[in-house]
Amino acid sequence: MPVNLEPPEHLDAIAGVRLGATSLGVRKPPRDDLTLIAIPEGAAVAATFTRNAFCAAPVIVAREHLAQKMPRYLVVNAGNANAGTGERGMEAARRVCALVAAAGGCAREEVLPFSTGVVGEVLDTRPFEAAVPRAVSELNPNRWLEAGRSIMTTDIVAKGFSCGFEAGGRKHTVTGIAKGSGMIRPDMATMLAFVATDAAVAPPILRAMLNEAVDESFNCITVDGDTSTNDACVLVASGEGATIDGSQAADVDALRQAVIRVCTFLAHAIVRDGEGATKFVEVRVTGGASREECRQVGYTVAHSPLVKTAMSASDANWGRILAAVGRAGVRDLDIGAIRMSLGEALIVEHGARAAGYTEEQGAAVMAQPEITVHIELGRGDADARVWTCDLSHGYVTINAEYRT
Amino acid sequence: MPVNLEPPEHLDAIAGVRLGATSLGVRKPPRDDLTLIAIPEGAAVAATFTRNAFCAAPVIVAREHLAQKMPRYLVVNAGNANAGTGERGMEAARRVCALVAAAGGCAREEVLPFSTGVVGEVLDTRPFEAAVPRAVSELNPNRWLEAGRSIMTTDIVAKGFSCGFEAGGRKHTVTGIAKGSGMIRPDMATMLAFVATDAAVAPPILRAMLNEAVDESFNCITVDGDTSTNDACVLVASGEGATIDGSQAADVDALRQAVIRVCTFLAHAIVRDGEGATKFVEVRVTGGASREECRQVGYTVAHSPLVKTAMSASDANWGRILAAVGRAGVRDLDIGAIRMSLGEALIVEHGARAAGYTEEQGAAVMAQPEITVHIELGRGDADARVWTCDLSHGYVTINAEYRT
Repeated sequence: MPVNLEPPEHLDAIAGVRLGATSLGVRKPPRDDLTLIAIPEGAAVAATFTRNAFCAAPVIVAREHLAQKMPRYLVVNAGNANAGTGERGMEAARRVCALVAAAGGCAREEVLPFSTGVVGEVLDTRPFEAAVPRAVSELNPNRWLEAGRSIMTTDIVAKGFSCGFEAGGRKHTVTGIAKGSGMIRPDMATMLAFVATDAAVAPPILRAMLNEAVDESFNCITVDGDTSTNDACVLVASGEGATIDGSQAADVDALRQAVIRVCTFLAHAIVRDGEGATKFVEVRVTGGASREECRQVGYTVAHSPLVKTAMSASDANWGRILAAVGRAGVRDLDIGAIRMSLGEALIVEHGARAAGYTEEQGAAVMAQPEITVHIELGRGDADARVWTCDLSHGYVTINAEYRT
Repeated sequence: MPVNLEPPEHLDAIAGVRLGATSLGVRKPPRDDLTLIAIPEGAAVAATFTRNAFCAAPVIVAREHLAQKMPRYLVVNAGNANAGTGERGMEAARRVCALVAAAGGCAREEVLPFSTGVVGEVLDTRPFEAAVPRAVSELNPNRWLEAGRSIMTTDIVAKGFSCGFEAGGRKHTVTGIAKGSGMIRPDMATMLAFVATDAAVAPPILRAMLNEAVDESFNCITVDGDTSTNDACVLVASGEGATIDGSQAADVDALRQAVIRVCTFLAHAIVRDGEGATKFVEVRVTGGASREECRQVGYTVAHSPLVKTAMSASDANWGRILAAVGRAGVRDLDIGAIRMSLGEALIVEHGARAAGYTEEQGAAVMAQPEITVHIELGRGDADARVWTCDLSHGYVTINAEYRT
């Protein structure tokens, strides 16, 4: 069960942005699995995509289209990732865009396609022919909750968050939804996330803001180390509110903070709903010579199956954490300088168990659903945080049974 | 249950090498967990150790001692790794060596200590005081089988192999034992392995031979990607047989082949007995620009929890393998040039599913306990092989329960 995560009760509408969700009629029992997000003319859109070399057909098409025009529609199907599908997959992704363009009254290049689900099956576009016009006809600004649900695959809980901010003396909003539960190790932005604000933001500012927010949030999470073929994160500025062009630093900062807050909430939500998750774990690495090496240590700990299974069993098996730090590949690591804490309990110093540490202290921390591991490397000023979950029987069950 | 692995029925003695096994009386129920290997004067010994920065006290002491003298005794305790134990751990490792030296009649520096088991507990040396003299008094050349059993921790099956070869017109033998089941990702030589031959081999030749054999065997396996803090592999040439000094290339080659054969058998045995293993998987990567990038691809596939859980479920989920190849970090990877086969079935070519592939073909391969994944990168002549096992409920159970 997800760790301290409830579905959103309400998500704020973003002036100008309309959403629709419907069923492609492929899943049994039927559920909404086709999502449309309509963006007003004059809006600015920034997006980041997976760095997996085997990126999916919709990722390639979305990149191409984004380079040509500002998008008017985002179209998302859940259940089939249309990845590893070669030229036929590309044709299918373009066909979906054409169907949306026809129903929505725009050019095909103004549609960005997104797919999530099973890898290796060419997307069947026939069900889109009836479903797309239906979704267009139902577009509505108050459908963020439905959209959050219709992009889910193995997710148990829908993920969404709204955050207000002020700019140009007016109230504004950032609202985002995301999906993701397995194949999660963002190397840019994993999973799918769609975030929008009503402010008017120049594209270069929007792109920089998206990159920063993704780097602070989605790029710091991992469930299983498997970077998806389909990850994408899109940030829309609908342009209905105040203009944020950089002339007012306070406005830029207010928007930046709101975007980071929404992205961080969504990133944490993905980990909390990680496949089989029973623990939410923050690995904080400080005192590194560079942010890169701090991340390297954080990810090595967060990916270690031995650490993750110990977390699952609420076992304060700090020796496994220490072994992971030791194999993280940090050059000239002085193990005597390292300090490690589990929650508030100092466990390791001078290369061995801390004098005052007791098994009871460790057990008390591990009994909680939220656990912080803090590793101080003692060799510099850089730091990083990685968020992950445990590796439980649930993970094995989900991934052994999915697709069958 | 281990995959196609039976304990050895017989292991050939190595002239001059004697072994003893006894119980430290700590485990309940008691079982042999202290192993001694006595090496004759004039023998040559080569050893490789873990590259984990948090290497254990016995690894540090063994390296120090090996730099000073040729060893006369190897002493191994199972159940406590004496790793992450700082200065007190070092004192314990040295104390064990002193006890063996006193009982065996040699200098402390002529003893190499090895420990395997739980990380983070200082080794209690008191039980060694009575056990070491007992083990010394029972030393015998015909105890390889018992030694193979007494070094086990979470291993289900004891691992050993003997291989004959001819040198100097005489018959010789290589015999080896190994332990290892979890925390297996050799980055030099994981786990503990002790291999001996009766030939007389000059130390530089022996070292080169060990490095080559380890690189071809133990350095190609992974169970969970977690490089241990205590790994070591020792190769002993007792010197009772013919002298192999490099003047006869055929003799050197015969020994080399025998050592590689023993190490490869033991490396495979560790994977077959990997924690929770139900499948033995060979990931073969060919057509790479370098051996390094082939290994990188092989390890990325072999470490992917999604691939490993699919293997466990006998699900031919090739999309997960392809996603792992795509995120392996190979520069300028041309996905159109990649060909991938599962057993004899060609699954992927031109960046998508191969035309003739059927799910039935994949299912037939996956139903076997031994599976080969072949990835042809189509960009060079280098190749590499990585051997691994699946990720099953058994792995989670073992690692959630061990130590508790």
